[in-house]
Amino acid sequence: MKIAIDGMGGDHAPFSTVKGIVDAINEYNAEIVVTGDKTVLENEFAKYSFDKGNLEIIHTTQVVTNDDKPVKAVKGKKDSSMMVALELVKNNKADAAVSAGNTGALLAGGLLNIGRIAGVDRPALCTALPSKKGFTLLLDAGANADCKPINIVQFGIMGSIYARQVLDVKNPTVGLVNVGSEEGKGNELTKAAYELLKEEKLINFTGNIEARDIPEGKADVVVCDGFTGNVILKLIEGVADFLMGKLKNVFMSGLISKLAALLVKDGLKQMKSELDYSEYGGAPFVGVDGALIKAHGSSDAKAIKNAIGYAMKYVEGDVVGEIKNSIKGE
Amino acid sequence: MKIAIDGMGGDHAPFSTVKGIVDAINEYNAEIVVTGDKTVLENEFAKYSFDKGNLEIIHTTQVVTNDDKPVKAVKGKKDSSMMVALELVKNNKADAAVSAGNTGALLAGGLLNIGRIAGVDRPALCTALPSKKGFTLLLDAGANADCKPINIVQFGIMGSIYARQVLDVKNPTVGLVNVGSEEGKGNELTKAAYELLKEEKLINFTGNIEARDIPEGKADVVVCDGFTGNVILKLIEGVADFLMGKLKNVFMSGLISKLAALLVKDGLKQMKSELDYSEYGGAPFVGVDGALIKAHGSSDAKAIKNAIGYAMKYVEGDVVGEIKNSIKGE
Repeated sequence: MKIAIDGMGGDHAPFSTVKGIVDAINEYNAEIVVTGDKTVLENEFAKYSFDKGNLEIIHTTQVVTNDDKPVKAVKGKKDSSMMVALELVKNNKADAAVSAGNTGALLAGGLLNIGRIAGVDRPALCTALPSKKGFTLLLDAGANADCKPINIVQFGIMGSIYARQVLDVKNPTVGLVNVGSEEGKGNELTKAAYELLKEEKLINFTGNIEARDIPEGKADVVVCDGFTGNVILKLIEGVADFLMGKLKNVFMSGLISKLAALLVKDGLKQMKSELDYSEYGGAPFVGVDGALIKAHGSSDAKAIKNAIGYAMKYVEGDVVGEIKNSIKGE
Repeated sequence: MKIAIDGMGGDHAPFSTVKGIVDAINEYNAEIVVTGDKTVLENEFAKYSFDKGNLEIIHTTQVVTNDDKPVKAVKGKKDSSMMVALELVKNNKADAAVSAGNTGALLAGGLLNIGRIAGVDRPALCTALPSKKGFTLLLDAGANADCKPINIVQFGIMGSIYARQVLDVKNPTVGLVNVGSEEGKGNELTKAAYELLKEEKLINFTGNIEARDIPEGKADVVVCDGFTGNVILKLIEGVADFLMGKLKNVFMSGLISKLAALLVKDGLKQMKSELDYSEYGGAPFVGVDGALIKAHGSSDAKAIKNAIGYAMKYVEGDVVGEIKNSIKGE
């Protein structure tokens, strides 16, 4: 199995990317093909010890930046590290692609270069949110700002498959993000989606879920349109930052509070790691006809390594094949 | 100025409600007319010392419960403490109404019994969220699950008036909740709303605001449809609970960490109070033709007292008149 990595995408590329690849080769015996500036990458890889037989470098001359408009990046930067990585999946030269680069460009590239699975109307970004049960999968985390009820149902099916095949959740529950827990609540979209979800036999639908219950872990998979999903994802980040900042102020306010901080240092570190996005190895773009994982823009080496690990599980669990079998195309 | 209070609405009514009323009479010299079971209320009020001349009790025989459907409550419970409080505003026997009861019933009662200001298409629930600047006003926090672009603009106008007249914010900034900060981002609704907002001269529109920047306080007023607003409001509650729970686990894990908790006790208390909804005295239902304040369902006496204080400011600042002048009706 070969995993293609966009060697130049992300805030800490290529340094963290290279270190993450090395760790994945050493820990998972991953076979990697990385795209990017060959000289730069070779210099970075030279710093580490690993089995060179597991690594191939493909030289590319362009880089997709965060300012690039998605479709322009796809059409105008065909020799970018990101688009070449996607091409490798399209041409079956790699089994999966991982990138920490421009999300919009990656999603557009996934749609235009790799393409949708027949029958999947809208592929979705699937993100793991921290919750009391460990994590909750959120789809769509932002690929589709406007959605139809049938899209939401397909998000539920695809999210359930990912939860089962990659995260080993047995019979995952699916909840619909809504403004009340009772049936009949919601806007036009969620009311219509509810009707379809409760009839859908491929999922274990447990009804509406209010936003306050998402961190409770009341469902394994929560589904919503990509606008709402993006708001959820970013608000969790914002509220966590806000509260951790307030907590820091409490601990830094004087000598005694600094002493208190020392006493609970390990506990706070553990708490922070439980909130850490990098644990869950990035967000798959489920519904495209290949394994495509978006790693967080600020991924460190551990996040890249984990993303590679989850990409391997995505391929081993044949998520694409399972989605094909579940959602029959025309 | 007379403030009508729903004496039976809320999780801790009538006990917290009565205590809150007593405190508001003693601190603000508020003139109160409270609705509810006269015997129950009189027994509660007998426990406290205050100027009885500032209090009138109107006996009602029904109570709107949290399980009541909104329109059924309005039509079927005309002699409830909630609906009679609204009638008092409608008939100019009170200047404002405060209730901690069933939100849906209160909003429906506000629309059907008090009615909209001419020209206001959709009144909105206006909630104060904690932020780095103290607070950020969110409209619509859940009154209108589906919205049109013009509704969002009116939310901006009404929120700005409330911020200015009640919370003393000079030239409040207005941000549109969206999935990216650049112009052109969003779903169909936010793209269209953006175009209208940037032309609107009655507000100080500063563009899109991502959900992660809401707790940063990047805008004084943030506007969105009521579905998104409800998700934001409840998710902040959920994430805060989740993190405070994790923090509690850290502090309770052993003797040393318990000692640490003691050392920062005051700081943590202060942090908690900064996150406390009750500080901001409930959410006005802006755009109805009267002052109507929804206090949190779990309001304690302090929250009720603050809600009464803000109701008084709402009347003194003539928010209804200002909205009438800004949004000319047909």
